[in-house]
Amino acid sequence: MNQINGGVCAAKGFVANGTHCGIRKNKSKRDIALIYSETPAAAAAVYTQNLVKGAPLTVTKNNISDGIAKAVICNSGNANTCNANGIEIAEQMCELLGKELGISPRDVVVASTGVIGQPLDITPIANGIPALVAGLGDNSEYACEGIMTTDTKKKEIAFSLEIDGKECHIGGIAKGSGMIHPNMATMLVFVTTDCNISSEMLSLALSEDVKTSFNMVSVDGDTSTNDMVAILANGLAENKKIESIGADYEIFCAALHAVTSYLCRMIARDGEGATKLLECHTFGAVDDTAAKIAAKSVICSSLFKAAMFGADANWGRVLCAIGYSGADVDVSQVSVAFKSAKGEITVCENGAGVPFSEEKAKEILLEEEIQILIGLGDGKGEATAWGCDLTYDYVKINGDYRT
Amino acid sequence: MNQINGGVCAAKGFVANGTHCGIRKNKSKRDIALIYSETPAAAAAVYTQNLVKGAPLTVTKNNISDGIAKAVICNSGNANTCNANGIEIAEQMCELLGKELGISPRDVVVASTGVIGQPLDITPIANGIPALVAGLGDNSEYACEGIMTTDTKKKEIAFSLEIDGKECHIGGIAKGSGMIHPNMATMLVFVTTDCNISSEMLSLALSEDVKTSFNMVSVDGDTSTNDMVAILANGLAENKKIESIGADYEIFCAALHAVTSYLCRMIARDGEGATKLLECHTFGAVDDTAAKIAAKSVICSSLFKAAMFGADANWGRVLCAIGYSGADVDVSQVSVAFKSAKGEITVCENGAGVPFSEEKAKEILLEEEIQILIGLGDGKGEATAWGCDLTYDYVKINGDYRT
Repeated sequence: MNQINGGVCAAKGFVANGTHCGIRKNKSKRDIALIYSETPAAAAAVYTQNLVKGAPLTVTKNNISDGIAKAVICNSGNANTCNANGIEIAEQMCELLGKELGISPRDVVVASTGVIGQPLDITPIANGIPALVAGLGDNSEYACEGIMTTDTKKKEIAFSLEIDGKECHIGGIAKGSGMIHPNMATMLVFVTTDCNISSEMLSLALSEDVKTSFNMVSVDGDTSTNDMVAILANGLAENKKIESIGADYEIFCAALHAVTSYLCRMIARDGEGATKLLECHTFGAVDDTAAKIAAKSVICSSLFKAAMFGADANWGRVLCAIGYSGADVDVSQVSVAFKSAKGEITVCENGAGVPFSEEKAKEILLEEEIQILIGLGDGKGEATAWGCDLTYDYVKINGDYRT
Repeated sequence: MNQINGGVCAAKGFVANGTHCGIRKNKSKRDIALIYSETPAAAAAVYTQNLVKGAPLTVTKNNISDGIAKAVICNSGNANTCNANGIEIAEQMCELLGKELGISPRDVVVASTGVIGQPLDITPIANGIPALVAGLGDNSEYACEGIMTTDTKKKEIAFSLEIDGKECHIGGIAKGSGMIHPNMATMLVFVTTDCNISSEMLSLALSEDVKTSFNMVSVDGDTSTNDMVAILANGLAENKKIESIGADYEIFCAALHAVTSYLCRMIARDGEGATKLLECHTFGAVDDTAAKIAAKSVICSSLFKAAMFGADANWGRVLCAIGYSGADVDVSQVSVAFKSAKGEITVCENGAGVPFSEEKAKEILLEEEIQILIGLGDGKGEATAWGCDLTYDYVKINGDYRT
């Protein structure tokens, strides 16, 4: 498996674009994105578990209930959520796009991201679709920009891999910076592949993958109303179709996880206001579930996140977060170490502090990527969770998001 | 029931003090507190549900297992938690105090608050106890100062009330500013009363009360390792002893709730870095549990808290937080209004936005006490939760707490 360029256009037969259509006032910000495969693609998606669900999610779920899609359209600047006419607008987006592309509106995955509760005007979208379609090409980057909100970095990745002797490709784009605490899905992630795989196996691969990828990311503990991860597989790699669990399926899952875990790290690193990526690895747990609960509790702790912003080796807050997590843990067995490019330092063993150099700890924690290594005793359960530090800028960004 | 002065010294037979003994470097900051009743008092306490528990909690639980106590000693500046010799140090605190007061060490409630995982030196405490005891008097205020950490305001209240024709008194002090998300208890709260009540009924009253008082407060979602609410009742009011549920018990519970809910508001208002008290009232829920879950989810949302800091009427974040709370709610029925001394404004009805004046909303939200009124439909369940806004200063305080 090799990392390659191209994002969602790396897989054969996928083209993309992103433009400014006028949902946002700032004309230099692309606010609408499109991904298209002329060949019908197997499609699967997972959605937010929030009871308040964005209207586009309902429409998408209905559209891909047959396991097939050809296009993804997504706007930023408005979430089209908690609006009386939300479903109608999302359906209009599919109809307008379908007409322009000459495909059925039922073959469109539709998504929106931005402020909740402000009616989404269809006019700029209707006016913008012809140019959006006309510009389709090897433009994964533009699509990636089109779905960004408070994101500061483009989140794009692709790999080539071999299945059944055929060269396959898989790539994805993501957006997500605030309101990030996915539950069975994350903000918006679109993955494309030319691998030949049934929609049933694609669904299974995606739903299994999110348990250890997007569901283990948190920026601020707020589960969005519009989270969605969608994957399209158009089969143009011409490998023998994957229709059951086996060696080919496992290779595909590994490639999918390479894409999703990269995007997870990117999302956490680009958390609103973040200066650091926090990667918490728990091991020695009674089972993977306990390891996951403990890891996620640590990266969600406001106090721990603020300590990381201050490069303060305040391991008491790590123990505190494990203690209230609800995980089945013997706290007298817990060890904690911090690791970065500058080295590794153990600060707690058997649930109590050990002497350590504050200077060395500070040097390690001043780096931009910090690993928190947490031993939980004798078990074999392990997990990784991703988060970021809590900073002045997080407060600034969210103290006045709407204006 | 009338509000009176005196805090924990308002009830007959209770004296208190607070001094600087040297746990903290800053000599102007009192770092140890004492409350004393010569008359043996019925005692009850509730403790943190964090698996990592401060050593003093274990010692206190053991000491008051007979339902009797005479004194409360509490230091600030060090939580005496995650230390190998924690239990030993907490027991030494009880022994040294017992010797000085001429009481059994088993009649002492001991507590600590401050940084986790740094050994607590007994020397300054041993040296400080004689002066602490010598200064006992009508000094609730000094005791209140002695337990403060990042608190900026003293949290003290007392009421007089009549039970069985006798004048009774009840008063409390509290500390708590960060790591506030109590679960069956809160940071440190000490309540005294001269009401005559059995330790069984006192326990029942306290454990029922915390469900709608301290368990409904959150500053940052982090449940501390050292949370404790303790109450001492010495019976000097000479009312007929409350030994069962009935009219007298109900009067006592109402007075207790007046003390605890006041302290809840004080704790939330003085949350680390807070500029605003947020009081979230949910009503029309299917039951009180759903109302509680929804209310607490709203006041815990980082995004909503940041919006309140910015006086931004971002009701979409309220709906989002209700949606992911796990409460049994029909989101299409939800209404939201903001209220303060400047008036009330409805921003959402039937789960969707309604037109409102942004200027009026801003005026209301610029106040220091904000009520969020959330209608959930047709049920009779209701709840109140208290929190605060998320500010630059929260990040500042917690980015470098240990230094």
